[in-house]
Amino acid sequence: MSLEDKLSEVGRNLRSSIIRELLKFAASPEAISFGGGVPDPNTFPRHELAEIAKEVIEQDYSYTLQYNTTEGDDLLAQEMSKLLTRIYGIEGIQRDQMLFTTGSQQALDLMARIFLDKDSICFMEFPAYLGAVSAFRMSFPRFETVPVEDDGMDVDYLERRLKEIDAKGEICKVKFIYTVPNFHNPASVTMSLEKRKRLIEICNRYDILILEDDPYGMLRFSGEPKPSLYKLAGPDRVVLLNTFSKVLTPGLRIGVILGRSDIVRRATMAKQAMDLCCPSLTQRIAARYLNRYDIVEQIKPGIELYRSKKDTMIKALNQDFSVIEGAKWIDPEGGLFVWITLPQGFDTIGMFDVAKSKNVYYIPGEAFSIEKTPSTSMRLSFCLPPEEKIVEGIRRLRDVIVEYGKQKGLM
Amino acid sequence: MSLEDKLSEVGRNLRSSIIRELLKFAASPEAISFGGGVPDPNTFPRHELAEIAKEVIEQDYSYTLQYNTTEGDDLLAQEMSKLLTRIYGIEGIQRDQMLFTTGSQQALDLMARIFLDKDSICFMEFPAYLGAVSAFRMSFPRFETVPVEDDGMDVDYLERRLKEIDAKGEICKVKFIYTVPNFHNPASVTMSLEKRKRLIEICNRYDILILEDDPYGMLRFSGEPKPSLYKLAGPDRVVLLNTFSKVLTPGLRIGVILGRSDIVRRATMAKQAMDLCCPSLTQRIAARYLNRYDIVEQIKPGIELYRSKKDTMIKALNQDFSVIEGAKWIDPEGGLFVWITLPQGFDTIGMFDVAKSKNVYYIPGEAFSIEKTPSTSMRLSFCLPPEEKIVEGIRRLRDVIVEYGKQKGLM
Repeated sequence: MSLEDKLSEVGRNLRSSIIRELLKFAASPEAISFGGGVPDPNTFPRHELAEIAKEVIEQDYSYTLQYNTTEGDDLLAQEMSKLLTRIYGIEGIQRDQMLFTTGSQQALDLMARIFLDKDSICFMEFPAYLGAVSAFRMSFPRFETVPVEDDGMDVDYLERRLKEIDAKGEICKVKFIYTVPNFHNPASVTMSLEKRKRLIEICNRYDILILEDDPYGMLRFSGEPKPSLYKLAGPDRVVLLNTFSKVLTPGLRIGVILGRSDIVRRATMAKQAMDLCCPSLTQRIAARYLNRYDIVEQIKPGIELYRSKKDTMIKALNQDFSVIEGAKWIDPEGGLFVWITLPQGFDTIGMFDVAKSKNVYYIPGEAFSIEKTPSTSMRLSFCLPPEEKIVEGIRRLRDVIVEYGKQKGLM
Repeated sequence: MSLEDKLSEVGRNLRSSIIRELLKFAASPEAISFGGGVPDPNTFPRHELAEIAKEVIEQDYSYTLQYNTTEGDDLLAQEMSKLLTRIYGIEGIQRDQMLFTTGSQQALDLMARIFLDKDSICFMEFPAYLGAVSAFRMSFPRFETVPVEDDGMDVDYLERRLKEIDAKGEICKVKFIYTVPNFHNPASVTMSLEKRKRLIEICNRYDILILEDDPYGMLRFSGEPKPSLYKLAGPDRVVLLNTFSKVLTPGLRIGVILGRSDIVRRATMAKQAMDLCCPSLTQRIAARYLNRYDIVEQIKPGIELYRSKKDTMIKALNQDFSVIEGAKWIDPEGGLFVWITLPQGFDTIGMFDVAKSKNVYYIPGEAFSIEKTPSTSMRLSFCLPPEEKIVEGIRRLRDVIVEYGKQKGLM
C-alpha cells in the first residue's frame, strides 16, 4: 500500500517539530540544553501527589477509574473556579464556562477545529508559540502575524492590517487573535496594560475573538501582575486558556478553557468526538491537591528557584555577551524563557552546527516563525539546567557566537 | 459576538451524542439502565493500582510528573508488545509500530485526520459504533455502510459496492474499512474466520486499509478466539486499535494503535499537534501493572462476572420475551452487549417515552445509524446493573414493548 496516495491533506502536510529534531542531540550527559520549556522536576510536589493518588484510587475508585464526562471533574471545576477568581480576579464563573483538556495543546486544537476553515484568517504573534501554529495549521487557515515588541504585540500594526482586511471585505474571515500576554513564549515579554486595552478596543470594533493563552502567568518574579484580557473584556470577547503544566506538573496533562458557555459547549462536543474525556484519575488528583494545599503558596519555592536561575542567566549574559556587540535580550518579569537577538547577519539555525560541536543547545528563532523565516534570534530556557550549568552554558554559547561570527566575517 | 458566524464547518456541524441525551434520565436510583457501555467498577484492581500510583510517583516523579514523548512510555510499549503477542499471537512488534492514545477514541480521531478528506469514502458497518462515526464525521467523508449479519459484516455486499465504486473510477477515494470484528458494538456478533479471510482478500484486491477495533476481544465467555485481522494480514493491510478501557480501567484513558511504522509516524505527528502527549502518570501506572500482574489471569473474575450477568440477561429474555413474537437476539460469545431486534413496525426511539415512564433505559438502534434511520433494534448492556436489576429490568422492558406494541396496534 502506498501511504502517500491514501493520506488526507492533513496527513500529507504534517511536519515534525523542528524543536524535537534539534534537541535529539541534547540528551547526552555533557550537553547543556537551554532547549525545551520543561519544568524542573524538583518543583513537583511529589510526596503530596503520591499520597493523594493512592487515596483517590482507594476511596473513590468507582469515580477515578471510570469514564468521566467530557466536561470533566466537577470538583476540579469548583477548585479551578476558586483559583481563577483568586489569580485573575474573575468572578461569577459558571460550570458550563469551563472545559478541561489534555494540556493547553488540546485546547488550541479544539479552538482550531471549531473556528478555523481553509479560508479563515487567523492572527498570530511573531515570534509565535510553535504548538499553537501546529494545532491551527491542521485547518489550513491563512495566517497573519503581528510583531511582538518589548511591551507586547504591535497593536498599531494589527489595527492597520485589520483595516486593510476590512477594506477588502474579508473581515468576516478573521476568526481570532492568538496571544500569550504574560512572559511570552518565546519572546519573554509581557503586554502592557495600555496595549491590552487597545487590543480589546480594536477587537471590539472588528468583532474578533481573542484567544488568551496564559500558561506562565503565575510564575512572576517581579513587577505587578497585569489584568488578564479576560478580566478586562469578559467572555464575550476572550477565551482564556490555562494549564497546570508549568505550576503543578505537566505529567497530569490538565489544561482548562474558560469562555462563553456556547463556545465551551461547542468545544465540549468536539472533544467528545476526539477522545471522550480526560482521565478521571489525573483530574481528581489535581482537584484534591487544590482543595488540600494552597497552590499559590506551594509554588513560591518553585518561583524562587526559577527566579534565581533566571538571575544567573541574565548575570552571565551581561558578563559574557559584552563581547558580542549589538546582542539584545530582555530581563523577563517571569516565565521560563530569555529571548536573545543577535546582530544582523547572524542566522541561529546556521549557527546550530557550531553549537552542537560545543555541546550547548537553544531553539533557533526560525522555529517560532510560521513560514520558517531565517532569524537572528534564539530562545533560551533557564528552568531545567542547574545554576552552574547555566553559567557554563552561556560561556559555551558566547564561544559559539564568536566562532560563528568570525567564520561569517561578522565579528 | 454571533457564534454561528464565527464557527468553522466542523464547529457548525457538531452533534451532541444522542446516547448522552437519552441517558440523562437514567441516573435516578429507581432507574435500571442498560444504556452505557461502562464497565463494572468492581472489576477494577483498585488496591493494586492505588499502590502502584503511589509508588511510581514517589520513585519515578521526574518521569511520571513530567512531559512525555508523543509516542508514549517505552516501558508501557514493552509490556504492551508482550501482551499483544500473547493475546493475538503477533510477533516481532517494533517500538515504532505503536502509539499510545487517549483511549481508542483518540485513535479513531487520529485515523480520520491523517486519512479522511471531504471527498474520501469511508466504509462502516451498519449498525456502527457511534464514537467512530462522530470522529470520522469531523472530516466530512462520504460514508458507505455494510450490513452486519450474525457472523459479521456482509462481505458479499462489500464486494459488490467496491466493484461499483471501482467501475465509477472512485476506488482511490476509499480510504479504509472500519470494523469491530469481536463482540461487535452494538450488534454483539463476532466475524467468522471465513469472513475475515474474505474481507482481507477483498481489501487486498482493491488496496484498502482495514481499521480493526478490538476493545472487547479479551472479554470472551465461550467459544474459541478467532485470529485478528492484523494477525491474518499484517501491518500492510491492517491497523489494529486496542484499549485498556474494558479490561483494566477506562479511568486511565489508554488506547494503543498498532500499525505500519509510516502510518504510526503520521499519527504521532498529528497527535503532537493535538495534545503533545498522554499523561506520563497513567501510562506508567499501566506499565507497572502489566509488569507486576498477569492481566490475562487478573481479568478472569471480571469475565466471570460479565458472563454471569450476560447469562442472566439471556435467560430473562428467553423467559419474558416469549410473549413478543418475532423478537430476536444473539447470545454473545463475549463483550458487553446484547442487540435485540423487534418485529417490523416497532420504533425503539418512539418507544423510549414508554421506557422512561417505566424507568428502564436502552440505546435505540437509530443511535448506531449514520443517517439516523428509524430502527426496530436496541442495544442492551449487561455489564453495569447487578443481576437482580437485570431480571427486573428485562421484565420492565417487556412491559414497555407490550404497552407500545398495543398502542401502535402491533400486538
